[in-house]
Amino acid sequence: MAHINEHYRKLSAGYLFPEIARRSQAFLKSHPDRKLLKLGIGNTTEPITPSVIEGLHRGVEKLASPATYTGYGDEQGQEELRKALCDFYAARGVKLAIDEFFISDGAKPDSGNIQSIFGLDNIVAVQDPAYPVYVDSNVISGRTGAYDKASGRYEGIYYMPCNSENGFFPEVPDAKVDLIYLCSPNNPTGAVATREQLAAFIDYAIKNKAIIIYDASYAEYISEAALPKSIFEIEGAKKCAIEINSLSKFSGFTGVRLGWSIVPKELTVEGSEAGELNSLWNRRQCTFFNGASNIVQEGALAVFSPKGIEESNKLVAYYMENARIIREGLQSLGLTVFGGDNAPYLWLQTPGGMSSWDFFDKLIEETNVVGTPGSGFGPAGEGYFRLSAFGHRDDIIRAVESIKSNLKL
Amino acid sequence: MAHINEHYRKLSAGYLFPEIARRSQAFLKSHPDRKLLKLGIGNTTEPITPSVIEGLHRGVEKLASPATYTGYGDEQGQEELRKALCDFYAARGVKLAIDEFFISDGAKPDSGNIQSIFGLDNIVAVQDPAYPVYVDSNVISGRTGAYDKASGRYEGIYYMPCNSENGFFPEVPDAKVDLIYLCSPNNPTGAVATREQLAAFIDYAIKNKAIIIYDASYAEYISEAALPKSIFEIEGAKKCAIEINSLSKFSGFTGVRLGWSIVPKELTVEGSEAGELNSLWNRRQCTFFNGASNIVQEGALAVFSPKGIEESNKLVAYYMENARIIREGLQSLGLTVFGGDNAPYLWLQTPGGMSSWDFFDKLIEETNVVGTPGSGFGPAGEGYFRLSAFGHRDDIIRAVESIKSNLKL
Repeated sequence: MAHINEHYRKLSAGYLFPEIARRSQAFLKSHPDRKLLKLGIGNTTEPITPSVIEGLHRGVEKLASPATYTGYGDEQGQEELRKALCDFYAARGVKLAIDEFFISDGAKPDSGNIQSIFGLDNIVAVQDPAYPVYVDSNVISGRTGAYDKASGRYEGIYYMPCNSENGFFPEVPDAKVDLIYLCSPNNPTGAVATREQLAAFIDYAIKNKAIIIYDASYAEYISEAALPKSIFEIEGAKKCAIEINSLSKFSGFTGVRLGWSIVPKELTVEGSEAGELNSLWNRRQCTFFNGASNIVQEGALAVFSPKGIEESNKLVAYYMENARIIREGLQSLGLTVFGGDNAPYLWLQTPGGMSSWDFFDKLIEETNVVGTPGSGFGPAGEGYFRLSAFGHRDDIIRAVESIKSNLKL
Repeated sequence: MAHINEHYRKLSAGYLFPEIARRSQAFLKSHPDRKLLKLGIGNTTEPITPSVIEGLHRGVEKLASPATYTGYGDEQGQEELRKALCDFYAARGVKLAIDEFFISDGAKPDSGNIQSIFGLDNIVAVQDPAYPVYVDSNVISGRTGAYDKASGRYEGIYYMPCNSENGFFPEVPDAKVDLIYLCSPNNPTGAVATREQLAAFIDYAIKNKAIIIYDASYAEYISEAALPKSIFEIEGAKKCAIEINSLSKFSGFTGVRLGWSIVPKELTVEGSEAGELNSLWNRRQCTFFNGASNIVQEGALAVFSPKGIEESNKLVAYYMENARIIREGLQSLGLTVFGGDNAPYLWLQTPGGMSSWDFFDKLIEETNVVGTPGSGFGPAGEGYFRLSAFGHRDDIIRAVESIKSNLKL
């Protein structure tokens, strides 16, 4: 008698975005004359840049001829691409070896799967609010107890609230935890950890033999030179941190799919030798994964050429100009808004202490704008609202104008 | 104090192919004048066909313009592609709904991950020999005890030996098991299950409320009309089976990466309603996966056009002609060889009862040909040897000629 993984039944409701889609559909049904203005999902909208398109075409063309055709590649990714990544990190002062990089099909799979190389009795700490995959992957694997509807929390997870009082970055835990998920620049709050804040977590991790899982998917949106783009810019991080990143937001690869994880060989945990975590992740990838698409890897190689980097930086600048437009529009109404300066997300404090979902309904009703309720990212997101800077410029301007003209405050 | 997933330490040695690579390297080092003739890894060698190349280029080109650019797609895959798959199955008499298909980045990830929607106390049955991912993914997840070196088996797994006595397809288990992995056409033996053999397993599964995980990655290599290409051709399968497949071997997508799983909505397990397994796999994919590359999906759509299917069939015919050449070459030496008629693998009985690895050493030493020791796929593979029909025609002919001229029997 086969039976299911019962942990799935602990998952609270569905995913956030289907609920947004449901309410949006219902709104359109009752207001057939309106058109939605979407500042919701963090999905890229601008075309992939010329030199990267060329790289992708090259990747396809190679498959058309016997001399250049390739089948299975290394599960860890093409050596040339891993070398390019090494150089990319070296240019910002981070020295890593090729075999510390693992190319994948994205940051979401890696941030979901990384927990599987750790035992089930590790205690997990997450920023609250956070990208839902960190919590859900641990619920499904059985590292939590039940979901408590009143608190919005899963039993057994250590939540680190991020709010306006702590500048949306938490203090180190005041209890012992084992796996700490940090995301900087943060999805959803747009906050970026300073060097000092990361140093405190590294210090905690080394003292408590904990591991930091550092999601740097939005690193290229950091414009302030003093802010770290990689946790490995901070001393000691190689002893206690794994970093995850992707080309989704840097180069518009959300649909193309390419990411990477860095598992330093110095990294150790209780009872294991240096290098064991690196080998475990290697074994995990070799067993459950068969490499990123060779076409996509060829495109990624083009991203890391000088021209590709320049073009990707322009893409980032485009979205960051969107962020500026949204931020200034909201601020002109006297609203309190965070983020959007080193991240493509704006984190709005809902006016008058409204709940996140009430503000969702108010915003769509009065302005036709769709955003993301902060409470969907964790209980400490209640009273906040995420607006995404990913969109065509015209659509962004139209949405901001509609908010400025129609939102009743 | 973080700690690792200890189950990883149960895994016996490394993966088979690194050991082959190691011995090949050592051989070349001590015989610098020789050149290896590879009939080892099941990796495609022939270029992707023109209409599919065109589809892939189209996928790239769409990303170059704002009007056709797409970011995140559905985790389950593009509707148009799932519709094409529905039609492909319908053409062979199998009726499935679009939301029973889940597009992925390959059969290896799906066959590794599928176990995660089931509880840890399910008893797993595998064909012996088998593709190593079925066993390894269950070892890592904690469904087995220790590895026993003497028997070559993991405690807690139910092994179903496949040998010349049973035509390389097992009888149904004589004990209760919960998850049954079947691969047909089989990797490594090349054997194909008949309708009657599958019907017996379906009957067992329904009676015992077990689930069959059916890997059909080589289905398009079946040439005999009476042999089933999908388990869903057999009555009752939708109640008890999940099917996994990919374009790797049909269309040369080993490096391009596209697969799919079929989880019927009728499928149930103890304590769950119909549809729950379908939703669990959906939830799994939505949490840990972000969709197959949009470029690759466009290429896959081209595969399922009439022209694409015709071209892919020609690719299959090319490799099957290789298989014929290998089989006839071996038979001309009086060797006993199985498979290779409805599968791209040949399963050679080692001469004189040699062990698989001894034959590996003999073959490389005398003929420069590299193959795969059968024992690497499980203890019942001992005394057998896999030869792969994937290769350029010239290389295949050269390898067969070398065996015919140089193998000392």
